[in-house]
Amino acid sequence: MSACSPIPSTSLAMRTCWINGAFLPEDQASVSIFDRGLLFGDGVYEVAAVVNGRLLDADRHLVRLERSQREISLPAPYDSATWLDVMQALATQNGIDEGLVYLQVTRGAAERDFPFPSAPKPTAFAFTRPKSMREDPNAAGIRLHVVPDQRWLRCDIKSTAMLAQVIAKQAARAAGAFEAMMHEDGVVTEGGSSNLWIVRDGAVHTRPTSADILAGITRDVVLELAREAGIPVVERAFTVEQACAADECFMTSATSFVLPVTRIDERTVATGHAGPVTLQLREAYIARANRLTR
Amino acid sequence: MSACSPIPSTSLAMRTCWINGAFLPEDQASVSIFDRGLLFGDGVYEVAAVVNGRLLDADRHLVRLERSQREISLPAPYDSATWLDVMQALATQNGIDEGLVYLQVTRGAAERDFPFPSAPKPTAFAFTRPKSMREDPNAAGIRLHVVPDQRWLRCDIKSTAMLAQVIAKQAARAAGAFEAMMHEDGVVTEGGSSNLWIVRDGAVHTRPTSADILAGITRDVVLELAREAGIPVVERAFTVEQACAADECFMTSATSFVLPVTRIDERTVATGHAGPVTLQLREAYIARANRLTR
Repeated sequence: MSACSPIPSTSLAMRTCWINGAFLPEDQASVSIFDRGLLFGDGVYEVAAVVNGRLLDADRHLVRLERSQREISLPAPYDSATWLDVMQALATQNGIDEGLVYLQVTRGAAERDFPFPSAPKPTAFAFTRPKSMREDPNAAGIRLHVVPDQRWLRCDIKSTAMLAQVIAKQAARAAGAFEAMMHEDGVVTEGGSSNLWIVRDGAVHTRPTSADILAGITRDVVLELAREAGIPVVERAFTVEQACAADECFMTSATSFVLPVTRIDERTVATGHAGPVTLQLREAYIARANRLTR
Repeated sequence: MSACSPIPSTSLAMRTCWINGAFLPEDQASVSIFDRGLLFGDGVYEVAAVVNGRLLDADRHLVRLERSQREISLPAPYDSATWLDVMQALATQNGIDEGLVYLQVTRGAAERDFPFPSAPKPTAFAFTRPKSMREDPNAAGIRLHVVPDQRWLRCDIKSTAMLAQVIAKQAARAAGAFEAMMHEDGVVTEGGSSNLWIVRDGAVHTRPTSADILAGITRDVVLELAREAGIPVVERAFTVEQACAADECFMTSATSFVLPVTRIDERTVATGHAGPVTLQLREAYIARANRLTR
């Protein structure tokens, strides 16, 4: 068995990936076992949506990538202009009309030692995946599963050291839920890989950014769309109980857009159907995505 | 540039590594960019010492590996007997008289999705490194650098999602220290990759095991050696202030054995020299290592 074997046969047909400047078939895209991304989770990443064959808000994702790299003192191997070219080229080569581009930067291969190598040679790679987002069966409403937030204290950094999120989202799936609702002492932080929101008395509420959550790009856009639509916005943390008792609940992420939350574990949120404010924001988000990619 | 390039030229001469059943030169040992160890930090690891060309306490490390795998529901790809053979074979092939064997297991390559793949094919690999441990210049005494413990809530799992430890140990190196002293609200948890101890009134104190720290194999052995030597043992957390004011302070790890701590940031611990209890335990540890590997 090759060390660089392709991913199992449940995967898609062979796609083109990009690594350290080269476009390669996915079964040839590999990193050394000494890569610090593999040994330490010493890396950061981004996921941007592709709509109508074009990148959506990739510029914003790349600003966040730059911040993540800076926060962990990882010298950026590529600038945003190069990344934009690579991401668009990958989407085009792989025929992605709707889907995502994933990119990751690690501190590269070096003799294993926790502190940074004196002359790091970062590893950078990217790949794509098709995904239906505008016509998503989950738009009828998803279920969340409540779990304690077990993550580290710098959740504002989009790092790949995410075993806590893996465990949270696996627990959600095992419970028949689409996403985790993570909380600290009953106060919601965020989803396993999304931001969470509630609607109360016509206003949308979401947790303010801090080291406790990731500043979602979709979160920012939805805040803008809400303000444009005259929907009051409250950046304040809410509890699991407040979410269960809310008029509406929804989640946002770059590759789910806006999805209504209709159940939280065994409890039904409001009517059990997607609420009007949620659907208005979802439609506004899709309209904007179409406008920006046409 | 090959995706599977060897580690930079500061590294050792080409060694033999082991991956998924095959012995390979290090420049051929690689994993797919879809490996969950790389994408999520979804993996666990162990490091065992080699003394006199033989593994030290590898059986205990493999018991802990089994626990780590179980805690993250990772199906063990190899049993302990196989790992023992692989580890010893690697040490022998690479001519390691004194040093370490590193091994890691990840949940393997799969289409990127946080929850576990339905049919995971774990990745397992191992490599070696020579290191002087019995004759260590740091045995004269090391310096610790105090940092907040930013890790997740399951520090009992020896996972590779360790960006917090990377940052802590980099901060220590930048401050001219050998290791980090991590604390929560002034109470010491552990070192960046070690357990920490103090000596007060002839008794050794170290934090009890819990989800807050890793249950060190060397920690266990040193507890046993202390008891055998009639040294009172107190498993209780201590503060940074208590460490600074202690009669002695030391750290333990599988590849540092027992090292005296003589400075904590700008403060000198006691006389500023290695203390008698620390040196007694270090000598007992080395004597035991020699006995078990001869």
